[in-house]
Amino acid sequence: MKVRVGINGYGTIGKRVASAVAAQDDMELVGVTKTRPSYEAHLACAAGYPLYVARPEQVADFEKDGLKVEGTLDDLMEKVDIVVDATPGGVGEAYRPLYEKAGVKAIFQGGEDHGLAGVSFNAYANYSEAWGANFARVVSCNTTGLVRTLFPLDRDIGVKRVSATLVRRGADPSDNKGSALNSLEPSLKLPTHHGPDVQTIMPWVEITTMAVKAPTTLMHLHCIIADLKKGVKESDVLAAWKDVPRVKLVSGKQGIKGTANIMEMAKDLDRPRGDLMEIAVWQDGIKIVGSTLYYYQAVHQESDVVPENVDCIRSMMKMEPDAARSIKKTDDSLGIGK
Amino acid sequence: MKVRVGINGYGTIGKRVASAVAAQDDMELVGVTKTRPSYEAHLACAAGYPLYVARPEQVADFEKDGLKVEGTLDDLMEKVDIVVDATPGGVGEAYRPLYEKAGVKAIFQGGEDHGLAGVSFNAYANYSEAWGANFARVVSCNTTGLVRTLFPLDRDIGVKRVSATLVRRGADPSDNKGSALNSLEPSLKLPTHHGPDVQTIMPWVEITTMAVKAPTTLMHLHCIIADLKKGVKESDVLAAWKDVPRVKLVSGKQGIKGTANIMEMAKDLDRPRGDLMEIAVWQDGIKIVGSTLYYYQAVHQESDVVPENVDCIRSMMKMEPDAARSIKKTDDSLGIGK
Amino acid sequence: MKVRVGINGYGTIGKRVASAVAAQDDMELVGVTKTRPSYEAHLACAAGYPLYVARPEQVADFEKDGLKVEGTLDDLMEKVDIVVDATPGGVGEAYRPLYEKAGVKAIFQGGEDHGLAGVSFNAYANYSEAWGANFARVVSCNTTGLVRTLFPLDRDIGVKRVSATLVRRGADPSDNKGSALNSLEPSLKLPTHHGPDVQTIMPWVEITTMAVKAPTTLMHLHCIIADLKKGVKESDVLAAWKDVPRVKLVSGKQGIKGTANIMEMAKDLDRPRGDLMEIAVWQDGIKIVGSTLYYYQAVHQESDVVPENVDCIRSMMKMEPDAARSIKKTDDSLGIGK
Amino acid sequence: MKVRVGINGYGTIGKRVASAVAAQDDMELVGVTKTRPSYEAHLACAAGYPLYVARPEQVADFEKDGLKVEGTLDDLMEKVDIVVDATPGGVGEAYRPLYEKAGVKAIFQGGEDHGLAGVSFNAYANYSEAWGANFARVVSCNTTGLVRTLFPLDRDIGVKRVSATLVRRGADPSDNKGSALNSLEPSLKLPTHHGPDVQTIMPWVEITTMAVKAPTTLMHLHCIIADLKKGVKESDVLAAWKDVPRVKLVSGKQGIKGTANIMEMAKDLDRPRGDLMEIAVWQDGIKIVGSTLYYYQAVHQESDVVPENVDCIRSMMKMEPDAARSIKKTDDSLGIGK
Repeated sequence: MKVRVGINGYGTIGKRVASAVAAQDDMELVGVTKTRPSYEAHLACAAGYPLYVARPEQVADFEKDGLKVEGTLDDLMEKVDIVVDATPGGVGEAYRPLYEKAGVKAIFQGGEDHGLAGVSFNAYANYSEAWGANFARVVSCNTTGLVRTLFPLDRDIGVKRVSATLVRRGADPSDNKGSALNSLEPSLKLPTHHGPDVQTIMPWVEITTMAVKAPTTLMHLHCIIADLKKGVKESDVLAAWKDVPRVKLVSGKQGIKGTANIMEMAKDLDRPRGDLMEIAVWQDGIKIVGSTLYYYQAVHQESDVVPENVDCIRSMMKMEPDAARSIKKTDDSLGIGK
Repeated sequence: MKVRVGINGYGTIGKRVASAVAAQDDMELVGVTKTRPSYEAHLACAAGYPLYVARPEQVADFEKDGLKVEGTLDDLMEKVDIVVDATPGGVGEAYRPLYEKAGVKAIFQGGEDHGLAGVSFNAYANYSEAWGANFARVVSCNTTGLVRTLFPLDRDIGVKRVSATLVRRGADPSDNKGSALNSLEPSLKLPTHHGPDVQTIMPWVEITTMAVKAPTTLMHLHCIIADLKKGVKESDVLAAWKDVPRVKLVSGKQGIKGTANIMEMAKDLDRPRGDLMEIAVWQDGIKIVGSTLYYYQAVHQESDVVPENVDCIRSMMKMEPDAARSIKKTDDSLGIGK
Repeated sequence: MKVRVGINGYGTIGKRVASAVAAQDDMELVGVTKTRPSYEAHLACAAGYPLYVARPEQVADFEKDGLKVEGTLDDLMEKVDIVVDATPGGVGEAYRPLYEKAGVKAIFQGGEDHGLAGVSFNAYANYSEAWGANFARVVSCNTTGLVRTLFPLDRDIGVKRVSATLVRRGADPSDNKGSALNSLEPSLKLPTHHGPDVQTIMPWVEITTMAVKAPTTLMHLHCIIADLKKGVKESDVLAAWKDVPRVKLVSGKQGIKGTANIMEMAKDLDRPRGDLMEIAVWQDGIKIVGSTLYYYQAVHQESDVVPENVDCIRSMMKMEPDAARSIKKTDDSLGIGK
Repeated sequence: MKVRVGINGYGTIGKRVASAVAAQDDMELVGVTKTRPSYEAHLACAAGYPLYVARPEQVADFEKDGLKVEGTLDDLMEKVDIVVDATPGGVGEAYRPLYEKAGVKAIFQGGEDHGLAGVSFNAYANYSEAWGANFARVVSCNTTGLVRTLFPLDRDIGVKRVSATLVRRGADPSDNKGSALNSLEPSLKLPTHHGPDVQTIMPWVEITTMAVKAPTTLMHLHCIIADLKKGVKESDVLAAWKDVPRVKLVSGKQGIKGTANIMEMAKDLDRPRGDLMEIAVWQDGIKIVGSTLYYYQAVHQESDVVPENVDCIRSMMKMEPDAARSIKKTDDSLGIGK
């Protein structure tokens, strides 16, 4: 019998998790909630995803626009085993009591605090920590990106201290509010929250971060400096990432000069929505100086956490005890790693 | 027996036409040419598209990078019935003698002059003009966009005079050379060439155009003013576009505020590469004042000409006499109109 | 004796009008109001501009930051003959009763409706209409731009009908909220308000407009199509603009390819704040086809209305009956026309 | 008697150095060279700067455009004591023999290699090293920025090791070729050249750098991590920069959120061309963790080296033995430090 999944919030992350859940043979997408009858609501409907609304008074708006509404969030909660909360950052906190009262497990996203769920999740690093949990948090896109490459590095070589500078995209591609058009804006509160957030998954790692917002929409770009525990070569670093899922090496020599080329490659690979769910690491942008490693990686903020949500469902619902098998099942269904 | 197609040039347009040709059941993609062993060459290879090089001396570069090369452009010409020339604008002219000598029909793109082919092509407007032709030119993305909406308007209502301002995207998304980052640049040579180019398809239409380049990558946006031959209502205009292929109405009220939202919609529609091959017209951005019509449309410069190339093959190779049937076959295979 | 001027609102327009007023020998800048102790408040202070606050409770914030506050807006009103309202669009309406009660004349900006003031102002076109008025409105940057070139065209040659497409900058350079980063967004409500706004100055002109927002900060760019009342040559058009104040011809051949080059030129001209208060018209981007004129112009949205405010003060305060003399005095003081 | 200065190359840097030299009472701007009769040539002429051309055959182009040409580069060399080479990066090398043959001292810019001049210059750090030299190189905008803040830090507190990530602007504001519009592009060759370039001034400092190019035009933004030789507080760091010339503290709390706000501030300060020749450091973006210092600084790539060129002239021409006095004289003349 399939696990019944609901999605609360059908925005950038929610709609992608919905597609991903619908692509799993061990899960059933019971419904998604939407607050406005936008074109995305119409497409959800056309895709056959049952539509729910957050509050009863929204039903009329949807029906006036020709959209069938299956019920409210409360109705949806009665039909699901687990809900993926993909509401805007900080809003999930307000919904937790509702989920708890309905007896439904819930996954929160990285915009919420670790404390809200008690478990922060990355499939490769700590799959078993969410086993059977009622609440878990899939860490943010940036934290997911840092953990994906640092965890295997630390395991295979050993990492003493990490300093990372995150060049953040200013806004998502379809964000009409956008961001400052021609400015670079530093995150003045130092160190930024990204380091402590990595420590919710890898508490033993010393990491400090800085961040700058740039007027671009496609990806975050991380500039990472890692003091290693032993002297190694660039080839050892590449070996540590070989066969690690959701890390994809790219090459400047082959024309991948920047984040725009990476997203073009994802489209050429025929990935769903043109997303790149892996972290892209430049294989010709890796350097060891002494025992310090320098490397660049790019994070597709709209999608890298999507497969993590799928795996998190399997762990929380005790569907698959083996992390590697869950990851492979998820990745095969989404075209990841092709 | 399938028509054998080669693609000369595997860039933005060439790679898309290759995918589209490969998706047709009446065509065989015999090979594509590439000049550098970029990641795109690797993906073409992985997709099973036979790789050819423009000149023999390039073979070594490809083989050093682990890529199998099937031969040169000359070799490819011996195996195909028709070639789609997707080389950079103005380069096609240099290749025409080679195609002619090989006895291969050829389709040029909008970067070439009308005179090079003698026939300029749009599937809906003049499919039969390319019937059996040895050379034809698929008009540019902007001209295709203008013809797609003006042709049915003129046929059903009558167009006296058109003034269009084209707000052009500065560069394609993955163009590393890019364009001026924070500037608006007018095309000072007035009227711009877009009007005469429309007249290669609709010679009877009076049209003048202006153009401005803006620092954005996604789509061109056309602001069109059309003096009509009779007084009509907005609903009559919408009726003229109803059931016209490759014209897609979008709605600001449903959240499609700009070109970024259109491209997001195309991804959500699961279109190949996230392309929107239709022309998007804002249905709530249409206005009649007196007998003058004002409307906005957006053109996905990377892909709107792709299905036109497929139909052009059918017309030149006398594969399907009926334009509507060719268009429908093409569109069904590419997910257009979903 | 100098006319005593206050500025309510010290943002993009307010701070420029303050500098301009301070540069006039027949005006005294009595004070400016500010709502937050930003760096701009510190610079105003350093420049010797007396600081006032909108509401008494804001005084503490300023004083904590080491800024001397002279009083509140009410206090300022007691010391001035006229106030320039440079509050955000739509806010001026709320202040009108306060100005009226204080017996102070007021100039509103283009973000307010014509009806609020009853008189809409452009120094060259209708200086005398504000003569002695208690309230007037300096029209918006775009309307000012359109009137500056259309008024002399209409007077010298005759304009039957104008169709203009405005490619608008997405946000001002220092706007941290910014705008959609990589999107073109049309103004769907057609025709846009810019045409009727031109008619508040030139009610006899037939004009319709479209508008598109682009991700750039520097200037608006207008693409103008004007059906003329008689057949003329491009040189006649240039003659109509010759000696017209606040219209500046620029040349693509001399390297002015776009709005960024225009702003660079303004810096090179050593203009205050690098502003270009004139409307820039491309002299090599003008074309007559039949009796229709096509031309491009660029509008520096931050500053073109600034000298208009200064002249409007002179007209309302009956300081100078001759428009041309007021304009010349203003322009000489601000380096305009150099 | 004034030192006679020529400027070879009148682009972004050259035109600024020309203005700066013209503002010195101990220097005479004898002439500038230009290769095309652009608007900048016209403005140079209007400013009274004698125009020279690189090669005799260019004279005709200038004269056709109404520009008076004083002679060729060879002619200019006969009239000057020193030339500031502001030709494009790498071109200066080709001119060195010409300068040498003419017996004229020369200053190169940061686009040239250290070896070309033998002396790399920063006024505050090593003014005396260029004393009487025939050739010197003013280091690049980024290197100048790094040295300006690191030199006093190292002197007062001690710096063990520096890791800096440079978020570079993609192109200058008026660069029509521009850069990738919506991409982040890392410098894959690691460590980047900026570290060794700092060591041409401060050879004893251990510094490694990474760099990312972002689609913005205004400033570079440096994210700097410095391991200090002793434990200090943020206030000690601020004290080290206090009274250091050409370092300007800015404040996020006062509304300086990003580089766009800094450039706006420079305009509000009425700086020539709106330039900020100081390095801007966020005083509320400084953090000490253990003995590691984190801070952000912004570099105005168009202008920060301009006063360095002026001081370098004084040192090479033995005009002023005291660095501090030369710096103060330069800064006073350019409004720096106001």
